[in-house]
Amino acid sequence: MDFQLQATDNNARAGLLNLAHSQVATPVFMPVGTQGCIKSLDATDMQGILGAKLILANTYHLYLRPGEKVVEELGGLHRFAQFHGSFLTDSGGFQAFSLSDNVKLQEDGIVFKSHIDGSKHLFTPAKVLDIQYSLNSDIMMVLDDLVGLPAPLKRLEESIKRSAKWANLSLEYHKQKNRPNNNLFAIIQGGTHLKMRSLSVGLTHEGFDGYAIGGLAVGESADEMLETIAHTAPLLPKDKPRYLMGVGTPENILDAIGLGVDMFDCVMPTRNARNATLFTHSGKISIKNAPYKLDDTPIEENCACYTCKRYSKAYLHHLFRAKELTYARLASLHNLHFYLELVKNARNAILEKRFLSFKKEFLKKYHSRSH
Amino acid sequence: MDFQLQATDNNARAGLLNLAHSQVATPVFMPVGTQGCIKSLDATDMQGILGAKLILANTYHLYLRPGEKVVEELGGLHRFAQFHGSFLTDSGGFQAFSLSDNVKLQEDGIVFKSHIDGSKHLFTPAKVLDIQYSLNSDIMMVLDDLVGLPAPLKRLEESIKRSAKWANLSLEYHKQKNRPNNNLFAIIQGGTHLKMRSLSVGLTHEGFDGYAIGGLAVGESADEMLETIAHTAPLLPKDKPRYLMGVGTPENILDAIGLGVDMFDCVMPTRNARNATLFTHSGKISIKNAPYKLDDTPIEENCACYTCKRYSKAYLHHLFRAKELTYARLASLHNLHFYLELVKNARNAILEKRFLSFKKEFLKKYHSRSH
Repeated sequence: MDFQLQATDNNARAGLLNLAHSQVATPVFMPVGTQGCIKSLDATDMQGILGAKLILANTYHLYLRPGEKVVEELGGLHRFAQFHGSFLTDSGGFQAFSLSDNVKLQEDGIVFKSHIDGSKHLFTPAKVLDIQYSLNSDIMMVLDDLVGLPAPLKRLEESIKRSAKWANLSLEYHKQKNRPNNNLFAIIQGGTHLKMRSLSVGLTHEGFDGYAIGGLAVGESADEMLETIAHTAPLLPKDKPRYLMGVGTPENILDAIGLGVDMFDCVMPTRNARNATLFTHSGKISIKNAPYKLDDTPIEENCACYTCKRYSKAYLHHLFRAKELTYARLASLHNLHFYLELVKNARNAILEKRFLSFKKEFLKKYHSRSH
Repeated sequence: MDFQLQATDNNARAGLLNLAHSQVATPVFMPVGTQGCIKSLDATDMQGILGAKLILANTYHLYLRPGEKVVEELGGLHRFAQFHGSFLTDSGGFQAFSLSDNVKLQEDGIVFKSHIDGSKHLFTPAKVLDIQYSLNSDIMMVLDDLVGLPAPLKRLEESIKRSAKWANLSLEYHKQKNRPNNNLFAIIQGGTHLKMRSLSVGLTHEGFDGYAIGGLAVGESADEMLETIAHTAPLLPKDKPRYLMGVGTPENILDAIGLGVDMFDCVMPTRNARNATLFTHSGKISIKNAPYKLDDTPIEENCACYTCKRYSKAYLHHLFRAKELTYARLASLHNLHFYLELVKNARNAILEKRFLSFKKEFLKKYHSRSH
């Protein structure tokens, strides 16, 4: 995989990821399409309306339904979902832990029961790569040993050792395959324990296409999270993309960009949209609230999104209250536009060496609304 | 309202309805947008993708939520929903009967309790017109006294007398208002009793902008329904549009077009879509069925709809099984395209004096699939 670093501004980075299906400008926010579909949207919404070039899909879900062999037979994820940008897929480990009953950690992998039909499955480092090859992911994640926070030091140590062992096994396995379009990212663990993070980086072999900081946004404070990112990011290879998994709020993303992170994913824009929370540059609003019943203005004046160019807050308020499915799509289009614009604007600021003032201005306005 | 009859083919008619917001070619099928929104779709889907010129909205729902005065303050239904074609609204009577508890029929109107909050309301002939003026409907329906079938003759007689009285009161009320863009349709009742239908037509004054055949598709057989339409349609003014309310299947619609009906509405294409039933020219299919899991072809080969141009049955099968909201939109776009094309093709056949052979060919193919 080719990653070009185009510019730095203090620790913030702007780059280009050249993937088989798209060229992705970084920093990049990846919308989450768990089951091969961003909830309430289709591929034309993602490509034509939002201009997304890289989206995330979940290996756990697609493995269980429709099955990775079904997706493979139908031409891989891109053809199946008719999304002709790029896909990053996670390893499935996180969902095996969070969605399954009777999950069991073994030295060679994770045993879990399907949340759909209770059937028993084993994820090993090689198995989750095989699944991701079948999906034909542009970026594959290694299986890792996850830890909820807070966790005892002993458990953190076990986690980073096992994660590094699995990552290195994955890299060996991947090297035997000739799959140049399927890139492999390692995942650094260690909770908020800085020494453990250093150890995790040290134990993880070189040669991955990118490096993820995993195990954050799982219960720790924002300060602990930022301290951990600030410590870990500089330990990672400068010439490889850095991915902060599952993060986060607009503030989190700008902070992490400032610390040298290149890639993000989060369900927040789409999940919040469905729950009535819409993002604006002067803060979040809850569209279900009474003041919007007669509000004839768009969610945000001058917003160029599909929804703001067409509909009033009053109409969205009505659709939400009336439980219309249409609401989810219109709200998701707005929130994803907001997130994609946020990282695009951050990138432009980095290219023009004004990231810190951009961030300061954004946050000042973003926190201006009393809500 | 201007209605031009362009061609007849036996009893089938092709015409043009000139409304304030659109010119509508008849026969026309009106998608149902109960709460000011076709379920899972937005106005751009309706106008840009489906090319619908006339859609239905429900007075009962919009009266209760967000309230017709809210819609009026926001510029009427067209501006509120950003649908710049035309709206037909029903009177609200049907929903007051079917959705409310403790509904009470009075000589002057219908008393009912809201299905949302239990509040008590009265619909009178004048009240439902006032609501529809606030919505700024292009075509308004009079309040009528509905009868479920089968019904005793005495009840049918009461229904047609009260319906005619209310219709005539509505017409008088409407004449006092200067609302040339809000057209008023009468509704003929009488169940499947042909004499009652004749009586209903006779009791209903002349001067309405159009005439609806109501009270069908409420439990009677298809033969009884067709016999009733065949009897009633010729009694209606030739120079006014005829609207068969709430009907129906593709077969029903073609039969009724053959009997001289011009306008239709039904939730079938959208509701069926959400329940996995998709229409094709060789019959209905249930996309949830196992054979579609690996079916890489569109719902229908050569279908020009948004969905068929992009997605396979396998992807739709997956989205349905995975309960993705996206499924509802893609399936609804296909089924509505099918219905709109059906009446468009019927219209072209009438213009070319080949409606009967068109209908025969359509039905032969439509019934060819064993399902």
